[in-house]
Amino acid sequence: MSYLLVHDEREYLRAPGDELQTDLGVLDVPEDVEPGDVLETHLGEEFVVRRLRGPDLFNHFERTGAPMMPRDVGLIVGHAGIAAGDRVLDAGTGTGVLAAYLGRMHADVVSYEIDPDFADVARENMRLAGVDDRVEVRTGDLSAELDAAVEDGPFDALTLDTGDAPDIVARAPDFLASGGHVAVYSPFVENSREAVEAAREAGLVDVETYETIQREMDFGARGSRPSTAGVGHTGYLTFARNAR
Amino acid sequence: MSYLLVHDEREYLRAPGDELQTDLGVLDVPEDVEPGDVLETHLGEEFVVRRLRGPDLFNHFERTGAPMMPRDVGLIVGHAGIAAGDRVLDAGTGTGVLAAYLGRMHADVVSYEIDPDFADVARENMRLAGVDDRVEVRTGDLSAELDAAVEDGPFDALTLDTGDAPDIVARAPDFLASGGHVAVYSPFVENSREAVEAAREAGLVDVETYETIQREMDFGARGSRPSTAGVGHTGYLTFARNAR
Amino acid sequence: MSYLLVHDEREYLRAPGDELQTDLGVLDVPEDVEPGDVLETHLGEEFVVRRLRGPDLFNHFERTGAPMMPRDVGLIVGHAGIAAGDRVLDAGTGTGVLAAYLGRMHADVVSYEIDPDFADVARENMRLAGVDDRVEVRTGDLSAELDAAVEDGPFDALTLDTGDAPDIVARAPDFLASGGHVAVYSPFVENSREAVEAAREAGLVDVETYETIQREMDFGARGSRPSTAGVGHTGYLTFARNAR
Amino acid sequence: MSYLLVHDEREYLRAPGDELQTDLGVLDVPEDVEPGDVLETHLGEEFVVRRLRGPDLFNHFERTGAPMMPRDVGLIVGHAGIAAGDRVLDAGTGTGVLAAYLGRMHADVVSYEIDPDFADVARENMRLAGVDDRVEVRTGDLSAELDAAVEDGPFDALTLDTGDAPDIVARAPDFLASGGHVAVYSPFVENSREAVEAAREAGLVDVETYETIQREMDFGARGSRPSTAGVGHTGYLTFARNAR
Repeated sequence: MSYLLVHDEREYLRAPGDELQTDLGVLDVPEDVEPGDVLETHLGEEFVVRRLRGPDLFNHFERTGAPMMPRDVGLIVGHAGIAAGDRVLDAGTGTGVLAAYLGRMHADVVSYEIDPDFADVARENMRLAGVDDRVEVRTGDLSAELDAAVEDGPFDALTLDTGDAPDIVARAPDFLASGGHVAVYSPFVENSREAVEAAREAGLVDVETYETIQREMDFGARGSRPSTAGVGHTGYLTFARNAR
Repeated sequence: MSYLLVHDEREYLRAPGDELQTDLGVLDVPEDVEPGDVLETHLGEEFVVRRLRGPDLFNHFERTGAPMMPRDVGLIVGHAGIAAGDRVLDAGTGTGVLAAYLGRMHADVVSYEIDPDFADVARENMRLAGVDDRVEVRTGDLSAELDAAVEDGPFDALTLDTGDAPDIVARAPDFLASGGHVAVYSPFVENSREAVEAAREAGLVDVETYETIQREMDFGARGSRPSTAGVGHTGYLTFARNAR
Repeated sequence: MSYLLVHDEREYLRAPGDELQTDLGVLDVPEDVEPGDVLETHLGEEFVVRRLRGPDLFNHFERTGAPMMPRDVGLIVGHAGIAAGDRVLDAGTGTGVLAAYLGRMHADVVSYEIDPDFADVARENMRLAGVDDRVEVRTGDLSAELDAAVEDGPFDALTLDTGDAPDIVARAPDFLASGGHVAVYSPFVENSREAVEAAREAGLVDVETYETIQREMDFGARGSRPSTAGVGHTGYLTFARNAR
Repeated sequence: MSYLLVHDEREYLRAPGDELQTDLGVLDVPEDVEPGDVLETHLGEEFVVRRLRGPDLFNHFERTGAPMMPRDVGLIVGHAGIAAGDRVLDAGTGTGVLAAYLGRMHADVVSYEIDPDFADVARENMRLAGVDDRVEVRTGDLSAELDAAVEDGPFDALTLDTGDAPDIVARAPDFLASGGHVAVYSPFVENSREAVEAAREAGLVDVETYETIQREMDFGARGSRPSTAGVGHTGYLTFARNAR
């Protein structure tokens, strides 16, 4: 697991044993470094050692596309009720922010990423987050390996951020535990609708799609108001449960 | 830990050793019951045993007021990055949905509830959710016991759903770990603003307040649209981090 | 033109020469009644005479379906810039709230309603609003009479609240003045998309679809917040202009 | 009144008798120019003459600050039901977009602007829009001249975009017609709340504050979704009516 080395507004991600070279001097991260330690560079500048938290993953992971935002990760966790010990089947790993968040809450995740280079980056990101023992990133196309998923199951939750989510949802009852949750993230109306139709046809229950609009509040000297900057759409979230 | 006994649309929450009496007959829940088991009443009606998931807590907990909704619980988890092993200081337990969600993701939670009866209900809810070993519900007023909190610290996150949140936020740097998160849930603009001002004055960083508007999509035969039903405001969420 | 007779919270719509019978007594509305007059029933109860305003149309028109809400009427006026002297072609009259608002701002409106009974009600509503000289309600299907529309043109604006809007939009350049506006109200994503595609193919410019979420604010004793009641979706509004 | 001279994407605002010089050549606008005319530069390039429409005011007026957006103008017209013949008292003219829209729908507007230079620009904008006969821009502070407003009254509507709106609302019953509307535009929660409290204290009815979130839809090749760009907050709109 890596740690953040923090000096004022500056943050660097380093593993125990790594070296940090900046204009503030050179610093060797001890093998036995602990969160809360204060390390000094050879020039006497101090860095606080900080454990990574969820939003830090979003900010520091190497990206292979637009990663899922903390708010959407959170909504999936809230609506699908992910908990420690859950076995989660995930497709469309991407940068791996969702998978890492889930691993950090001690869910056991099998995550499919179709692009081998992206999968490599995601595996490295899991190591950074210290969850490589809980999140297995498989290079492959889950929709082509649904029989394997059935054998691996049952899973407590299925989380999908991939265009062919409807095809996978259609088989969800075969590999989900009783009461298990499906969560589909999709930017588009049409794709969300297809996921809903697949869920209904598969006999899943509590099928719902949410769109979420989140705005920052601006608390300035002249008064309080929602930000004039606006926050755009990210994705629709579709949830369903296995009734059986 | 209790389990859901599910027969079609009907769900009953029972612990191992309990008895379930309904018009479908009487059923004794074995001490060694496991999720996925199928139990039969004396009339031969089947109930599937299901492990509780997050949203089930919201639906089945005994309520002592309007509990926090799964979406807001999720947003706190996402924006504050709660993970297994986090030590969380919580105030305004209420029904305990947030605390139980956090316990289920193996955070260790100390939660203050000022009303003794509410605290008793919350403790029972923690038992139902099987997280009474991870969530300690203390009867009391956190804002009056901040020195104790400092001694108990450091905490990785502070989650507040209480009117005097600004007073507690003002002391947050004294009991939060470096990089630790504050999350304040408040229905009102004024109270959120006070929390933000307290956070800024206390030197916390990344201070942000979000309002979240969530709508269900309606995928009907005539077309796709946001629900005409509307989803109302729940609360503003203010987040901040300890810079030190 | 009819007037509102107002006594406390009670409002009655009556024309000059009409009689009003309520438990407050009988009242004859003089032929030369004027807004601001105070009329007395035979029991001595007073009614203030009030000129109808836009939102009163929404509240007092006889309805033949869900009428367009004042907010959506307003958005059409704002985005399409309707003004006195504009010639407006309208389809899907319905209750006629939009048409009457436009007539009241001295636009000249030709409005098509396919259902003869609805058209009769709409004509009566135009009389109530005192705009029957400016709003001609035609019983018929505009999409089947587009050649007539071309002959009647050019129009300054085209306002559509009908399922076949895309077909009409496709011909809009033939009967719209240079710079003239198209406004399409549709509850559904799919229909809005078709209208946009028709507008683009027809060479219209400034093609935009808006969804509008409007919430009431709740200014109570405990603080200020958006209403917990929520306001649901009404319709998407698509706008475009004739470039020629 | 000025007209738009349009050549492809280029638009120039000119009055009859003006000259237009561009790289497309020189063009004299005839005194008797009419919308729909096609004018030629000395190089033979064609310009179509177009009547200004509402959104063109927003785009072409000289600005003295952020002008009110067409959507907010429209919402005021819709919720306050402005119509031809209405006498409107307006304060905080600014660029004058609202006043000009109202003048264009044949309302008679008295508008107060405290800054003399802004007032001059607004007067020129009214001339551009051809509504200088209907919109009188007065240099002054309405809140200091409420007695004059009472003498000028009754007004059918009061529209305010100024920080001291609550003070003016408090006197509104003295110069509003029976059933007349108040509309207050304010970016901030606190100011909106004060306006609401002033309205309630003054005995106005139907007091409501709306916040409006408007998003563009993005209809692309991959699917339909709300724009990822986001549209920010503009202002809260508070409405009320004179019960008397």
